[in-house]
Amino acid sequence: MTEHSERRRRGRPRGANAGDTRARILAAATAEFAEHGYEAASMRAIARRADVDPALVHHYFDGKQALVAEVVEVPLRPERVVREALAAPIDELGGRLVRAVLTAWDSGAVRPAAVAALRSAIGQGPVARMLREFLRHEIMQRIATALGDADDAELRAELAASQLVGVIMVRYVLEFEPVASVDVDELVRRVGPAVQWHLTGSPESLDSTARSANDSAHDE
Amino acid sequence: MTEHSERRRRGRPRGANAGDTRARILAAATAEFAEHGYEAASMRAIARRADVDPALVHHYFDGKQALVAEVVEVPLRPERVVREALAAPIDELGGRLVRAVLTAWDSGAVRPAAVAALRSAIGQGPVARMLREFLRHEIMQRIATALGDADDAELRAELAASQLVGVIMVRYVLEFEPVASVDVDELVRRVGPAVQWHLTGSPESLDSTARSANDSAHDE
Repeated sequence: MTEHSERRRRGRPRGANAGDTRARILAAATAEFAEHGYEAASMRAIARRADVDPALVHHYFDGKQALVAEVVEVPLRPERVVREALAAPIDELGGRLVRAVLTAWDSGAVRPAAVAALRSAIGQGPVARMLREFLRHEIMQRIATALGDADDAELRAELAASQLVGVIMVRYVLEFEPVASVDVDELVRRVGPAVQWHLTGSPESLDSTARSANDSAHDE
Repeated sequence: MTEHSERRRRGRPRGANAGDTRARILAAATAEFAEHGYEAASMRAIARRADVDPALVHHYFDGKQALVAEVVEVPLRPERVVREALAAPIDELGGRLVRAVLTAWDSGAVRPAAVAALRSAIGQGPVARMLREFLRHEIMQRIATALGDADDAELRAELAASQLVGVIMVRYVLEFEPVASVDVDELVRRVGPAVQWHLTGSPESLDSTARSANDSAHDE
């Protein structure tokens, strides 16, 4: 379904048998993720469970990320979308992340599958666990790493992600107008600065902006 | 379950029969919301369906909002939480909304029920429709109204709500650390300004802050 399944065909098994092998690896990956979650699952353990050589798993799937995308049938590699956005200078990351994420989700091929995967992620059970560990490991930690060695890098990354998740919820899941229909440029203009604020907003401006809200709440 | 069920007992029916009547009204409300959604359902139609006098419906439930809270079994009245926060001066709304929403969700009595309701809201089917219409009508429109007659009041209200929904998702549903455990004051300090930005950020600062992100994306 995704481009990576077409890669690395260098004299490896083809034909009628290949489909069976691929399906067996996917079934093994599904079971392995269900049993151990995303982080603890390994390509080697998936190969063992599928009773194939580990090289064959790597032949069909370029990593655990690819297997997750196949297991939930989403023709999108979120970690690539985020990685590309994170290549921008740090003070442009907010707008770049908003643009990258919304452009990916706006695609007709991606959207229904991605909505279904999001529903699974917030449900209960093994798929939810796998997707949460995937998001944490491949998205949050990637963003946190881009922030360098700030003490609060993890917190900032998660809050930036919270704004992205929130826009996804309102635009694609709840489908509230006008957010559901407004164009991506407008959302980059309006949401980008909020994401940027979470990533790099200075503690001083954080303090001064939030002071009145804090004070008045404490005065109640 | 909520305080409103204790209200307005002025010589109205009591005793063994009252529980039955109340349950019949709730069943009628569930069916009415399922058939017509939240906005089109009326207290009068619910009374008709339950075969009771409309005054009796108002005796047990002080409005459609109360019936929704009972139908989804959440001991919280989100529209009251938001209404109280919106009583603050407009430039303090961001922090106030964050504090009010997180304080409500942090309550041990509310949290599991609220998470379950959120799962329902993003699912499919009649409960999802009811909850979405409720959120739109009782939360988004309330926030938009607080912004006065700005052309983009609805868009601003939804984007502010998107940030609140996103934090709820990360803290209570996905339960990512550190956001899941950090205290409410810290989140008010960090998320309040993002919500405030959506509500009242000036178009000029919107433009200047977002320009670099936009430009660099267009230059790709």
